[in-house]
Amino acid sequence: MASDHRVVIVGGGFGGLYAARRLGGAPVSLTLIDRRNFHLFQPLLYQVATGALSPGEIASPLRAVLHKQRNTEVIMSEVRDIDVANSRVILAGAEVAYDDLVIATGATHFYFGNDQWEPLAPGLKTIEDATAIRSRLLAAFEHAEREPDAAKRRAWLSFVIAGAGPTGVELAGALGEIANDTLRHDFRHINPAEAQIMLVEGEPRVLPTFPPDLSAKAEKQLLALGVRSRTGARVTDIQEGSVTLQCGGREERIATRTVLWAAGVRASELGRVLADRAGAPLDRAGRVIVAPDLTVPGHPEIHVIGDLASFTHQTGKPLPGVAPVAMQQGRYVANAIRNKLADKATPPFHYFNKGNLATIGRNKAVAEFGKLHVAGFAAWFLWVFVHLMYLVEFENRMLVFVQWVYDYFTRNRGARLITK
Amino acid sequence: MASDHRVVIVGGGFGGLYAARRLGGAPVSLTLIDRRNFHLFQPLLYQVATGALSPGEIASPLRAVLHKQRNTEVIMSEVRDIDVANSRVILAGAEVAYDDLVIATGATHFYFGNDQWEPLAPGLKTIEDATAIRSRLLAAFEHAEREPDAAKRRAWLSFVIAGAGPTGVELAGALGEIANDTLRHDFRHINPAEAQIMLVEGEPRVLPTFPPDLSAKAEKQLLALGVRSRTGARVTDIQEGSVTLQCGGREERIATRTVLWAAGVRASELGRVLADRAGAPLDRAGRVIVAPDLTVPGHPEIHVIGDLASFTHQTGKPLPGVAPVAMQQGRYVANAIRNKLADKATPPFHYFNKGNLATIGRNKAVAEFGKLHVAGFAAWFLWVFVHLMYLVEFENRMLVFVQWVYDYFTRNRGARLITK
Repeated sequence: MASDHRVVIVGGGFGGLYAARRLGGAPVSLTLIDRRNFHLFQPLLYQVATGALSPGEIASPLRAVLHKQRNTEVIMSEVRDIDVANSRVILAGAEVAYDDLVIATGATHFYFGNDQWEPLAPGLKTIEDATAIRSRLLAAFEHAEREPDAAKRRAWLSFVIAGAGPTGVELAGALGEIANDTLRHDFRHINPAEAQIMLVEGEPRVLPTFPPDLSAKAEKQLLALGVRSRTGARVTDIQEGSVTLQCGGREERIATRTVLWAAGVRASELGRVLADRAGAPLDRAGRVIVAPDLTVPGHPEIHVIGDLASFTHQTGKPLPGVAPVAMQQGRYVANAIRNKLADKATPPFHYFNKGNLATIGRNKAVAEFGKLHVAGFAAWFLWVFVHLMYLVEFENRMLVFVQWVYDYFTRNRGARLITK
Repeated sequence: MASDHRVVIVGGGFGGLYAARRLGGAPVSLTLIDRRNFHLFQPLLYQVATGALSPGEIASPLRAVLHKQRNTEVIMSEVRDIDVANSRVILAGAEVAYDDLVIATGATHFYFGNDQWEPLAPGLKTIEDATAIRSRLLAAFEHAEREPDAAKRRAWLSFVIAGAGPTGVELAGALGEIANDTLRHDFRHINPAEAQIMLVEGEPRVLPTFPPDLSAKAEKQLLALGVRSRTGARVTDIQEGSVTLQCGGREERIATRTVLWAAGVRASELGRVLADRAGAPLDRAGRVIVAPDLTVPGHPEIHVIGDLASFTHQTGKPLPGVAPVAMQQGRYVANAIRNKLADKATPPFHYFNKGNLATIGRNKAVAEFGKLHVAGFAAWFLWVFVHLMYLVEFENRMLVFVQWVYDYFTRNRGARLITK
C-alpha cells in the first residue's frame, strides 16, 4: 500500500489523528510524528486533574490506534525545524521528506508575559500537568488538616482559578464537588465544604463564548457547588501564598496556596518556524493565518490545522480552539490530499458547528445549539453521551463509562493520588 | 467513640490497614500515619509497570477507606523518630502520643551495597517506580524502532530482570507478552517479538520459594513467552548499556539498555530507629526480630508487623514478606490490643498459610496448596479470582475486572503511556 506520495503529519491530537485515520488506505506513504506516544483525549483531562479518571483511561497509544493502517508509520520524536525549500522535516538525528505536510501541534498555556507565574499557577495541557494539579489540590486539603493556625488554614482551603472558559469552569465545578461531596467525611480537623473556590474572569461573565443566558445559568450552577465567580477581574500578580486581582480599578490581594491557570493560550512553537521558513502570517496569539483551504499562503503543500491555525474566512474571526474544529479540519485536509492525487478540486473548508457544550458538575452543564439553549440535567446527559461517543471511537473506552456510572451513584472519585 | 487509649499505626500497607480496620469501633482513639495518601495494592503494581492497569486502579485513598471509622484519624506525614521513653511518635512539626504503637512500614529495594545501580536498574515498590519502569520499557522499543545500527538496536531490545521471585517472574512474563502480543503490529522497522528477555536468578531455579516441580513448570511457561532464565547467576556489575553476570565462575557481559531490579529487599528505616530507641534486635535484612506476640522484646506496647517484622517462632525461619502474612499480623495485633483492653489473654501469633500463587501471564501461573501443586490455566484463574477478591474488599474495583476481561480477549494493554 506504500506509495510515492509522502504525507507527513506532525502532532497526534484531534487534528493530526483524524487526518491520519482518513488517510489510511489512501495511495500515500504516511508518517505521523508526535513527541508523545499517545493521543490524549484533552476534553477529559480536567477529570484526571480532579481525581475522577486515571491518565491511562483518557490516553490511547498512537501506534495502537493506527497499527492496522499498513501505509502508516508512527515516529515518536520532536520536530526541530522544517526545511521548506527541500521539503524535509528535521528531527533530532533524522530527517523525513514530505510531499504534503500537515502541522497540527496545537497550543500551550500563555501567561501574558508573566512566565514566572507558571510554577505558581500550573495550567492544564498535558497528563503531567493533570497529575501535578491533582497532587496540589489534594495536598492542599492535607496541609489544611495539619495546620493549627486559622489564617494559614484558610489560605490552604482557598482556591483561585484564573479563566472562566470551559476548562476553568470544569475545574472549578469539579473542585466544588470534591470539597462538598467527595471529601465530606474524610477529615477530622477541617470541614472541606468550607473551602473558598473563586473563578476569576476578565470578561463580564463566565463562559464568555456562550450566549449570556447560559452564562448566567452556569454561574448559578457554579454557586450551588460553592464556586464564586469574579467577572471583570484580571490577575495582576501571583506570589507564593497570594494572588492579586484588579477589578473595576480596585486592587485586591487574596491569600491562597492554590492557583490554577486556565486563562491564556499561545500557539505551538512551530507557528514561528513556519513564519520564518515559509513566510506564514501569524496572528497575535502566534497562530498561522491559513488560506481558505487550510494551507500556508504560497505553500499549497503545507497544511495547518487545529489550535495552531487561525481560520477567519467563515465568520471574520478565528474559529475557536476546540476539538470539533480540529477533527473537521483533519478530515478536510486528508480529503484535500486524496483529491489532489485524484486530480479533483476541493472546495474551501467550512466548519459545521454542531453546538457548544460546557459541563460544570454532576447534572450540571450548559449547551447551545443555535437558538436552542439547554441547561441542567439534559445538557449534562448530552455532554456525557457526546464525550463517550468520541472516546469509544479510538478504543473501547467502556471503562470510563463504568467508572462514571459508579461515581455518579456513589459520588466517589477513586483516582485521588498524590504522586511525585 | 474516641477513648483514652491511644493507638498509633505507622504505615498504610496491608499490615497497617488491616490492623486499622479491625480497630474500627474498638474503644480506642486510633491514628494512622502514612507518608502517602493512599493504600497501594502492591501485588498488582507490576501490571501498572507493564501498562495493563492505571495507578488509580490499584490505589485506594486511605481517608476514603477509613472515613466511616469515627474513632480513626489519618495523618499524611513521615515519622522522623520515636520517643520510646515518653511514648511519642515524632513527625515533621508535630508529635503524636501513643499507648500502643504498631509499626508497619514494610521494606524497600536493596542493591547489596551497590546503591549506584539504582538509577540504572530501578526496582518496583512505589507508583512512581511503576510509571517510571513503564516509560522505560516502552521507550526502549521506541528507541529500537529509530536506531539504524543493528548492535545498538539489539541492546535496546534486550531486557534483563534481576531476581526470579514472584515480582521478577511477573515482570518478565508481562514483558514477554508485550513483545509477543501487545506490540506485535505496532512497529515498521523492528519486530518486537525479537526482544531478548533474560531473567537472572542466583538460586538454582526460578521461584526458589516454590516446590521444584512448580519452578520447572514456571520456567517452561516463561520460555513460551520468550523469556530465558539464567539461574545460578549473579549480577556483579551494572553500567549504562550493559550488565555483567557471574555464572559458574565465568563472567559474562550483556549489552542491554534496560535492567529491572527485583532481587533484594531491605527493611524500612524504622527498624533501625526501633533498634536505637527500644533496643529491638534486627536480623541481617534489617527486620525487627519480634516476640511470639509480634512485640519488640521488652516493649509490650510496641508491635511490629508485615515486611518489617522477622517472625521465626513458627518454622524456625522468618515468614515470607507477602501480603497474607501482613494482613494476618495486622488483624492479630488489633485483636491483641482489643484483648488487652478487655483484660483477656492473646495466644501467640500463628500464620495460617492458605497457599502460594505466582502468575506469569495469560493462562499461565503456578499455585501451591501444601501437597497440591497446580500450574497453567487453573492456577492463573485462581490468581485472578483471589486478587480481585482482595481488591474489592477496599473499594468497588469492578473496573479492574472489566479491564481484565477486555484485555484477556483483545490482548490489549490500554495504559501504555510514556510519561515524565
